[in-house]
Amino acid sequence: MAFTGRELRSKVDEDGRLVLTLEQVEIPDPADDEIVVRVEAAPINPSDLGLLLGPADLSTLEPASGDGPALSMRVPERSLPGLKGRIGESLPVGNEGAGTVVAAGRDAQALEGQRVGLIGGAMYADYRRIKAREVIPLPAGASARDGAAMFVNPLTAQSFVETARSESHAAIIHTAAASNLGQMLQKLCLADGIPLINIVRSTQQAEILRAIGATYVLNSKDEDFFERLIDAIAETGATVAFDAIGGGTLGGTILTAMERAAVRTMSEYSRYGSDTFKQLYVYGMLDPSPTTFNRGPIGFGFSISGWLLFPFLQKAGSEVAARLRARVVDELTTTFASKYTRVIGLAEALQPDVLRSYARMATGEKFLIDPTLG
Amino acid sequence: MAFTGRELRSKVDEDGRLVLTLEQVEIPDPADDEIVVRVEAAPINPSDLGLLLGPADLSTLEPASGDGPALSMRVPERSLPGLKGRIGESLPVGNEGAGTVVAAGRDAQALEGQRVGLIGGAMYADYRRIKAREVIPLPAGASARDGAAMFVNPLTAQSFVETARSESHAAIIHTAAASNLGQMLQKLCLADGIPLINIVRSTQQAEILRAIGATYVLNSKDEDFFERLIDAIAETGATVAFDAIGGGTLGGTILTAMERAAVRTMSEYSRYGSDTFKQLYVYGMLDPSPTTFNRGPIGFGFSISGWLLFPFLQKAGSEVAARLRARVVDELTTTFASKYTRVIGLAEALQPDVLRSYARMATGEKFLIDPTLG
Repeated sequence: MAFTGRELRSKVDEDGRLVLTLEQVEIPDPADDEIVVRVEAAPINPSDLGLLLGPADLSTLEPASGDGPALSMRVPERSLPGLKGRIGESLPVGNEGAGTVVAAGRDAQALEGQRVGLIGGAMYADYRRIKAREVIPLPAGASARDGAAMFVNPLTAQSFVETARSESHAAIIHTAAASNLGQMLQKLCLADGIPLINIVRSTQQAEILRAIGATYVLNSKDEDFFERLIDAIAETGATVAFDAIGGGTLGGTILTAMERAAVRTMSEYSRYGSDTFKQLYVYGMLDPSPTTFNRGPIGFGFSISGWLLFPFLQKAGSEVAARLRARVVDELTTTFASKYTRVIGLAEALQPDVLRSYARMATGEKFLIDPTLG
Repeated sequence: MAFTGRELRSKVDEDGRLVLTLEQVEIPDPADDEIVVRVEAAPINPSDLGLLLGPADLSTLEPASGDGPALSMRVPERSLPGLKGRIGESLPVGNEGAGTVVAAGRDAQALEGQRVGLIGGAMYADYRRIKAREVIPLPAGASARDGAAMFVNPLTAQSFVETARSESHAAIIHTAAASNLGQMLQKLCLADGIPLINIVRSTQQAEILRAIGATYVLNSKDEDFFERLIDAIAETGATVAFDAIGGGTLGGTILTAMERAAVRTMSEYSRYGSDTFKQLYVYGMLDPSPTTFNRGPIGFGFSISGWLLFPFLQKAGSEVAARLRARVVDELTTTFASKYTRVIGLAEALQPDVLRSYARMATGEKFLIDPTLG
């Protein structure tokens, strides 16, 4: 028996409009090694918004014609060249999710009826066909909502720690640190005894982190932020930072503070700066404006690099990946628990006011899509 | 018998003035494993100017009081924090040079009277005492001027190639490419069959490179520069760039062009960009203004890193370093020949008009200090 269901799609037209639609699609029967999952929970992560909305201008949002709910908005002219590869392509959205196995191929019968977490895109849909080996059965008692976000944030938080360890950094700096991911990272660092310097932009965000036991929480809007950052780096030996923001000057400020902390301990002047190697990983684009930094005060021992989860996992190898996944299952409802402030149906995701809300990515707010709600 | 001679010193005072002086110093007798070299040639490299003049404002240049020639200039207030480590320290200058061994310790007698090249600072002086194992005897027939710049540029050019090879880059991009170093790099890449994309800022600079056989020479002031850069990258597969400029937007433009070339060959759209890893090494500061780049069009597979010769050589190990040095000696007057447009005495280096000339680092101009001229 084949399933029919809705699938959320995002498409950029030749004329520079981004159109969101709910398409009716037929799910082919699963192959021997496949299953079909009824999606019951899928988070809206910042990384999903990149594909869903891209650089579209939300102020131009308007209903579009279509068989079902449909929205349209304009992509600024200057952003179009970067989207060349997706123009005209109708792309399914939703990195990860969880649900119940409603059909299973011959070799995957054991999963029938089980609740699983899965990753691989196209999760903003009623059904998702997928290889059986790509899902993780949820532990007993865990709901679909518990398992909806068991990949991206839990693996990213752990991979930050793996990266820091494998490159011999004694402590970590994290920006936009009150995010769901940031809270997980703090819990993880507390459990593993790794000093973490959290950088936030409001007292509200600072409190979220202090409530889970954070020692170092710096508000970048405080007047003495830079001096306190140097002190915290000097105390912890942090020489790696993971930056979700990307744009502006914060990344450069962090590298400069690392250098200042390093120079404090130097006995001899060098015009090339300290020989402490300072690494900034940019893993997000909360601020899409240009990145600006001064090299002089940073010295030459630095690197600013892009960081993405899947290339990291691929490089780290299957043993490391398996170890990180196992820990997610073990600590699914503790270290890696996500809190959602709003649960919406699939059609609701295409209501203009709802879309504007989740697109804002406000502090403490996190949306979950449950397609069974309608 | 001990020697007495002049030594050029640079010092930043507490009150923010940079003072250049010629000090009379006594050279202690060499230890058993040491020699004393009479310096006969020492180049003024861009890297020397960093220590000699730092961020001082040349428009404030004026004679200073002292026993010999002395100059003073103001360091802008905003640059002082970065110089903290050198305030009050009288620093000798001059990375490398060549000359004749005029005294040798018991274990270094074989070098007595020989012409040698040497590196290690304090070369803008009449005499330099140094460990015998740190000098390289010049090949027969080579003058001190031939050997004056046998370390910094020849080792840097070769180390660029070593870096590119060890990181599996198929071709190299170089900015400020008509420099002395850039010409060496082009000769080296031609000899070793490595495609090199030279970026210059004038037709005069382009001609210098074409004259030595360069295939790819792009003028960043040309209107179609960006498109031609993408084409050249697509042709050569260049995924590493060495950038002497540092400030401004050129580095980001290079990474963007690399990404555009990579995306051309992609069959499927990814909002994270291509999986081609793109490396920008910043090794100079010709433009001290901030570095600015847009991450969006670059994707996440990039790194912008500082690059310095000596940390590279240290990491590469003594075998590699020995191999690179041996090649310099073998090709001293061919691949690694430096041309000087002006030879000045040590006292002349402290004449305001002369200083302004070499501080300009104009295209095709290169200064050599010969302390024996006075």
